[in-house]
Amino acid sequence: MSRKGDASAASNEEMAAAGHMSPDEFRRWGHEAVEWVARYMESVEDFPVLAQVAPGDIRRALPTHPPEVAEPFAAVLRDMDEIIMPGVTHWQSPRFFAYFPANASGPAILGELLSAGLGVQGMLWSTSPACTELETHMMDWLVELLGLPERFLSTGAGGGVIQDSASSATLCALLAARGRATSGLVNRVGVDRRLVVYATSQAHSSVEKAARIAGLGSEAVRRVAVDGAYAMRPDHLERLVSEDLDAGRVPCMVLATVGTTSSNAMDPVAAVAEVCRRYQVWLHVDAAMSGTAAICPELRFINDGLEGADSYCVNPHKWMLVNFDCDAFYVADRAALVDALGILPEYLRNEATESGAVIDYRDWQIPLGRRFRALKLWATIRCYGAEALRSHVRQHVALAREFAGWVAEDPSYELSAPVSLNLVCFRHLGGDEVNQRILDHVNRSGELFLTHTRLDDRLVIRVSIGGTWTGRRHVVQAWEAIRRAAEAEVTGG
Amino acid sequence: MSRKGDASAASNEEMAAAGHMSPDEFRRWGHEAVEWVARYMESVEDFPVLAQVAPGDIRRALPTHPPEVAEPFAAVLRDMDEIIMPGVTHWQSPRFFAYFPANASGPAILGELLSAGLGVQGMLWSTSPACTELETHMMDWLVELLGLPERFLSTGAGGGVIQDSASSATLCALLAARGRATSGLVNRVGVDRRLVVYATSQAHSSVEKAARIAGLGSEAVRRVAVDGAYAMRPDHLERLVSEDLDAGRVPCMVLATVGTTSSNAMDPVAAVAEVCRRYQVWLHVDAAMSGTAAICPELRFINDGLEGADSYCVNPHKWMLVNFDCDAFYVADRAALVDALGILPEYLRNEATESGAVIDYRDWQIPLGRRFRALKLWATIRCYGAEALRSHVRQHVALAREFAGWVAEDPSYELSAPVSLNLVCFRHLGGDEVNQRILDHVNRSGELFLTHTRLDDRLVIRVSIGGTWTGRRHVVQAWEAIRRAAEAEVTGG
Repeated sequence: MSRKGDASAASNEEMAAAGHMSPDEFRRWGHEAVEWVARYMESVEDFPVLAQVAPGDIRRALPTHPPEVAEPFAAVLRDMDEIIMPGVTHWQSPRFFAYFPANASGPAILGELLSAGLGVQGMLWSTSPACTELETHMMDWLVELLGLPERFLSTGAGGGVIQDSASSATLCALLAARGRATSGLVNRVGVDRRLVVYATSQAHSSVEKAARIAGLGSEAVRRVAVDGAYAMRPDHLERLVSEDLDAGRVPCMVLATVGTTSSNAMDPVAAVAEVCRRYQVWLHVDAAMSGTAAICPELRFINDGLEGADSYCVNPHKWMLVNFDCDAFYVADRAALVDALGILPEYLRNEATESGAVIDYRDWQIPLGRRFRALKLWATIRCYGAEALRSHVRQHVALAREFAGWVAEDPSYELSAPVSLNLVCFRHLGGDEVNQRILDHVNRSGELFLTHTRLDDRLVIRVSIGGTWTGRRHVVQAWEAIRRAAEAEVTGG
Repeated sequence: MSRKGDASAASNEEMAAAGHMSPDEFRRWGHEAVEWVARYMESVEDFPVLAQVAPGDIRRALPTHPPEVAEPFAAVLRDMDEIIMPGVTHWQSPRFFAYFPANASGPAILGELLSAGLGVQGMLWSTSPACTELETHMMDWLVELLGLPERFLSTGAGGGVIQDSASSATLCALLAARGRATSGLVNRVGVDRRLVVYATSQAHSSVEKAARIAGLGSEAVRRVAVDGAYAMRPDHLERLVSEDLDAGRVPCMVLATVGTTSSNAMDPVAAVAEVCRRYQVWLHVDAAMSGTAAICPELRFINDGLEGADSYCVNPHKWMLVNFDCDAFYVADRAALVDALGILPEYLRNEATESGAVIDYRDWQIPLGRRFRALKLWATIRCYGAEALRSHVRQHVALAREFAGWVAEDPSYELSAPVSLNLVCFRHLGGDEVNQRILDHVNRSGELFLTHTRLDDRLVIRVSIGGTWTGRRHVVQAWEAIRRAAEAEVTGG
């Protein structure tokens, strides 16, 4: 800070007198909170990964009524340990292999702290120019880091924006697509029930949610058939689009997934894009988790065909060490997005907006307000550097391959889907019930946390490797724990 | 933290070797970041309130390419001062009187830090039970603190949830309302173009944005006439609803505002609710900023009629010292919300959800993922206590009344709208051009930041009082600066 702070002594007293946590008290409790987080980082491995509480346990430990009189921050920290921690499922544990990674890191956490401390609103460029410009700059940096098509750079007709999640990105893509398919008419007079959207059964549930929210309805989602690796079949997509056109429907958007949640299946984006180009349908590519892999040149096959996408998203909050929320959403034509979402009431009018020389991100998203989320992305990219981010991804991919090897060598198990990156889907040959018992056994133990999916109507165990602190020993132990659980359950059952 | 951390020495080395910021490094840089924020609190008053940069200035100071090699966190802190700060508009300045308050506080900022450090996902109860249960508990605490109707308590058929913003709350309300008006049909087959929504011209732009997003279209928003105080006329609402029904349209939701953005107008909720009850239309009440005032019993007139609302929102991130984002959104019938937004894919199935004994907040919001935002609300309520929160609101309301008195006494100015709480709308009698010059003059000076609106097609200056650190002297100085600017501009012009 370059400015004087000579009023600080008086201010500290004034502030405390008004019931505020003064800057000096903030120093004291801030250091305690940092210490609390540092100790959590050191000890996260020691906690049961999945919270072992019953519904209502946490609420019962909380006072029924809010306090009339101030309590010290120490009471909050004490209750974090005593009340909150037993009810936490530890997403940052190196033994968390469930769902998808949501890895965080020191630089990102401190970026979040700085953002909260500044407390600016970035809804318009003018409401904090640095908030908008750093975000645009970081989105352009990511294009370079991930080798994304240049059409997504802000220097052309496109650009990127931070959304809270891939779900919101899918919704925004659909709103832009819906507008384009109807020449903007939908924004004025409402949805035409002939609009349809395409995705496979393996696509994230957010596509159905977006179709509902956007007023198309769940039934507007056409399910494109998948091949043996659970990836979209472009020939079937083309047949559906063509049939829908013949029936008078309006194909509006195709959602292709690069790394499905269920099994990390990779839709063939290039071939899908070709169908979209031919029929003039908006192509949104969802690479929420897997997109981060493109930071490694040798894994950049996941970007194949992306030049044909109208929009794209990848979540640095999943696998790039940035704490939630930080989804990078790109459009090739930002005008389509702003046409769908831009509304300018009088009280937000300002010279910079009218000049057309700036980006107002409120027109790129569902909410109006927005925090300074670019700070945590900036801090993470700088404090790691591209090299360390790459080696982090490489380690997870190598561990997943090694794990898949162990599964393949064990006659009691089979791999259930190709291992493209950091997710291993497999099953014990004993059938659904045995697999469910294995899952319950390990999750109850607190030693690790695994979740499941169904593929070809069979229960499949997922091991998703991507935690910040996950090393080889955790993966070795996970496989040992699974085998021990299987022995106990098969013998015991 | 109750668990051992005996692996910490080794872990710190391991982590640093892998390119991570180790827990020890996190301690070091965390303390620096806390110090940075504390100094910012002490010196925020010394910065020009409105950033004095031109479009592109910040980006030009940033490196074109992302770094290959790690940089120390010190470099981030240095660039915060040198590159970012000149581009920041200081929402936390005690001399920020623009838009609406977005006040933050030490306890909230530290709650955000703890949330980032834990890095949990609260999409399902089971993905971190404490995240869901603390949130439900805080929403119930707020019902008590604000004297809201009991139907919004989670212990009945209703309940509250933290949304990112009032815009998202309005959208969620509309989705629930849309579903109820069509017995759920809209969620399956899409929007019926006969659906219509009601709000005044003074309602927040998010109602039009929500109508667009939800597929009803901008034109589905019927504008209800306002009275002399810019509040909704229930007689006109009833006429519109009745005409629409006669014309075969489907009235779906009325949005009433308790404290409009433009002039803090208060729609008569009780009378509006009576119309809604009679015609079976969903009533959503948006009290984004002003709702916080209900923490003071003597200001609880703003809750009049709220028992008739189907949904309600208030933003602790505006005026209750919780940093953005923290919008408290309530529904009287949570089933209507979950029917609109609930989709359960296989990979999210779990025992707790199937049991029906828990809340899964992913079904109460647009995105799937969610942070542990209840922590900052909890820390704020506890570290202030209800008493201090009340005196904070009282001070702002008293200052606004005092300011309004000065305006009323000065023959060069007039009040442009009633001063219900903490917003003063007024204008210099010299006409629009003079008022614009006054605004430009003070904003350019950096001494304070004011924004405008238009009422009865005349430019009006808004002074919104609600900053954490805003005291009487800042309000006195603001009025002096406005008068000085007027003199300079009227004489000079």
